[in-house]
Amino acid sequence: MKKIISEAVIKRLPKYYKQLQHLQEQGIEKVSSSTIANLLGITASQVRQDFYNFGGFGQQGYGYDVESLKNSLARILGLEHEYNMIIIGAGNIGTALANYPGFIREGFKIKALFDIQPRVESIGNIPVYSMYDLKKYLDKNKIDIAVITTQKNAAASVANEVVSLGIKNIWNFAPIQLKVPDDVIVENISMSESLFVLSYRMNNKNN
Amino acid sequence: MKKIISEAVIKRLPKYYKQLQHLQEQGIEKVSSSTIANLLGITASQVRQDFYNFGGFGQQGYGYDVESLKNSLARILGLEHEYNMIIIGAGNIGTALANYPGFIREGFKIKALFDIQPRVESIGNIPVYSMYDLKKYLDKNKIDIAVITTQKNAAASVANEVVSLGIKNIWNFAPIQLKVPDDVIVENISMSESLFVLSYRMNNKNN
Repeated sequence: MKKIISEAVIKRLPKYYKQLQHLQEQGIEKVSSSTIANLLGITASQVRQDFYNFGGFGQQGYGYDVESLKNSLARILGLEHEYNMIIIGAGNIGTALANYPGFIREGFKIKALFDIQPRVESIGNIPVYSMYDLKKYLDKNKIDIAVITTQKNAAASVANEVVSLGIKNIWNFAPIQLKVPDDVIVENISMSESLFVLSYRMNNKNN
Repeated sequence: MKKIISEAVIKRLPKYYKQLQHLQEQGIEKVSSSTIANLLGITASQVRQDFYNFGGFGQQGYGYDVESLKNSLARILGLEHEYNMIIIGAGNIGTALANYPGFIREGFKIKALFDIQPRVESIGNIPVYSMYDLKKYLDKNKIDIAVITTQKNAAASVANEVVSLGIKNIWNFAPIQLKVPDDVIVENISMSESLFVLSYRMNNKNN
């Protein structure tokens, strides 16, 4: 039986992974749960509790081996696979993503952008196609993730379209909650939620 | 004595607020904790527990009054104030933020953008200035939040600069952990963390 992992733990996994990556880049080989806790601004017992969900990752008393812990987290996060992505919406956000070198390093390849009115033929080395060519493209290319970076009012119909063409995973930047079938995964990135957390902290400084 | 609110609860507050806003737009006046729970994909008891941190917001048995609950959440999130923001980095992300109408509706006003090499004089109605004019600008204008949308390698020095000029709140889009004095609040928005959560879900479909 697989354990159900809480949302809060899932959201911390990428933070652990990035901190471990950072420690490794600095040449650090061993790390304690309290050091990790400090880096994330949580308690050491929370770190151990989180790790316990995945079997604990080795003896606490002697600290964790940075490389092996990083690799375990990468495996849990699915980062040992490669993913092919397309971006729908070649505006500012789509262009920023296409230009960002960090994703490819982790195995997320942006294969193409699509736009209702493409204004350029490519961004970097990535081609920009018309939305009219989406079906033809998806017939010929295996794409794992569609990234939606359109305007708010176009996002719902774009989501319907990519789902109808067989896409099962959506990374959504549009400020709207997409309605998709149960077997489709949507991960939203919400700028306003992040901004509201900032204003919460500004108004609740003891937190 | 003020209660310490957990990170997980703080991160759900904007989600509650946005759902309540959405319900109000649809003309809905009363809502139960289980309806709210469904909209967020959590349990009704979690919703009641979360609200209990802030006094409970009225009787559960009869449901919550949508407008008054939304207003309470707005107050807790600090959304009844107005905030003046500047954006440092007039690239794709900075431009996308400057063009986004959602922030001003919630009282977050983008007053100016700054760039090391401004390529335009304004974005919409918002002026774009040279970084060399930042000090002069901050001497004359009360700014609550600096938004950092520079390249990764410029973000640390930009953060130092805005902090040295008196900025106490930073909304950081650069993929780097900023080191700031204790009285400065940094809220990070991390694209890769969101993407890694997506790949986690793709690889752990029972969650």
